[in-house]
Amino acid sequence: MELLSSTKSFGGWLKRYKHESLSVKGDMTFAIYLPPQAETQNVPVLYWLSGLTCTDENFIQKAGAFRKAAELGLAIVCPDTSPRGTDYPNEHESYDFGSGAGFYVNATMEPYSNTYHMYDYVVQELPHLIETNFPVTDKRSISGHSMGGHGALICALKNPGKYQSVSAFAPIVNPTKCPWGQKAFTGYLGEDKDAWNEWDATYLIESQVGKASERLPLFIDQGEADNFLVEQLKPEALEAACEKVGYPITLRRQPGYDHSYFFIASFIDEHLEHHSNALS
Amino acid sequence: MELLSSTKSFGGWLKRYKHESLSVKGDMTFAIYLPPQAETQNVPVLYWLSGLTCTDENFIQKAGAFRKAAELGLAIVCPDTSPRGTDYPNEHESYDFGSGAGFYVNATMEPYSNTYHMYDYVVQELPHLIETNFPVTDKRSISGHSMGGHGALICALKNPGKYQSVSAFAPIVNPTKCPWGQKAFTGYLGEDKDAWNEWDATYLIESQVGKASERLPLFIDQGEADNFLVEQLKPEALEAACEKVGYPITLRRQPGYDHSYFFIASFIDEHLEHHSNALS
Repeated sequence: MELLSSTKSFGGWLKRYKHESLSVKGDMTFAIYLPPQAETQNVPVLYWLSGLTCTDENFIQKAGAFRKAAELGLAIVCPDTSPRGTDYPNEHESYDFGSGAGFYVNATMEPYSNTYHMYDYVVQELPHLIETNFPVTDKRSISGHSMGGHGALICALKNPGKYQSVSAFAPIVNPTKCPWGQKAFTGYLGEDKDAWNEWDATYLIESQVGKASERLPLFIDQGEADNFLVEQLKPEALEAACEKVGYPITLRRQPGYDHSYFFIASFIDEHLEHHSNALS
Repeated sequence: MELLSSTKSFGGWLKRYKHESLSVKGDMTFAIYLPPQAETQNVPVLYWLSGLTCTDENFIQKAGAFRKAAELGLAIVCPDTSPRGTDYPNEHESYDFGSGAGFYVNATMEPYSNTYHMYDYVVQELPHLIETNFPVTDKRSISGHSMGGHGALICALKNPGKYQSVSAFAPIVNPTKCPWGQKAFTGYLGEDKDAWNEWDATYLIESQVGKASERLPLFIDQGEADNFLVEQLKPEALEAACEKVGYPITLRRQPGYDHSYFFIASFIDEHLEHHSNALS
């Protein structure tokens, strides 16, 4: 790991690293906020997955999360959103595909199948790296925004027991049924729509047969003035699936809030408290 | 005024406007955060002046200030840092001059004297505009960062009674004696160094003859790991001037903190409380 920067924030340290990832076969960058408590004890970790067009830096600069993280003694890890360094056809043309949007899946279509294994990266490789190299416990939670909010949901739903809690801001809850998801899944997974379902949170809820004791409650905030609400995000689909199978969900519709980090900042403290409660 | 955007944040509203400025003879952009209290009453205003390379957007995105502003019922106004829309020789070449750095002075050297009247803009025109068009009181405070921290100091020192309180993060306290200030003052004010002094906070303190009752205490945070501390910022010069004339100053040296917005975010709540106490 190569340390890119180290910045004091709220008594703790924000560090950015570059490392060679086996999952994506190239260099990846991530940020980690270590609260002051990490100087004397191991602390639990919240993983944050960012959305379309983002990198590891959007959350750390705009979410205003470190004040509460320092108070709670919570580390926060922010991976980049896509592999970098390749130049596949169409990889850099769109804000909602390729280097603009890794979608936290394991691609099966050439050429993306060579490196776009963001799911393996955030679920397996990155936690192993973090838990090997930093003063953290093996207690993890996961959250994210938009594409990353959906990423957080599928990481939690597909890995019972791996995370203590999950939450999301304005997640793309049903990607197989919206333009952003259909475009990404066609490019990464191909035309066979049956192969898409295992990467769709709403489908995973509908089909989930796990023990009730393994069901992590979903905690979601959604702005009602979000420009992407109707066409892309479709929280009502997830809500209906949860109702159908009795899956616990708290979906808060926040009047007047849009899709931006100003929305995230307004409610991040409550998400951090939700995770801290589950992690302690 | 043309409304550029309106975004809900912590129950209040962040709005960005463009308007035609008489002071700088061209369009200027500013952001205003109106806390929830502004829906039912007039609220006091903190003016925030940003630093080199910034616009009206750095503070609103990175400082994490709106949570506390919403709690305190404080509006925050963030002007842009320089006039825009002109193309003078050398205006856009440097990060520390021209469109990178207006320095909150009234330029007297051609061609900058035509439009670079940022001091008049932030002290006179902008408060008049704000107090005419928004639900605010005529109680004002002022703060800022680096070049803008110095801007806040000179605005307050040159206008006894205009502001209820003043603070700064990592201000350039003695611009006549550091490279950033010397470059800017040469370009805006010319070679006559006597003309520089009235724009230098340390000189203003040393020479100030105002009544003790009009002396606003200075509240300053300075990171000890700030890369610009020794060559550009020189807080010890201001401290010595204050000691010499008995001017009240609280200068906090914060170990480990750098010049970034991560530093500002870590202490902004205390500054907002300082101003709110003075404003109420």
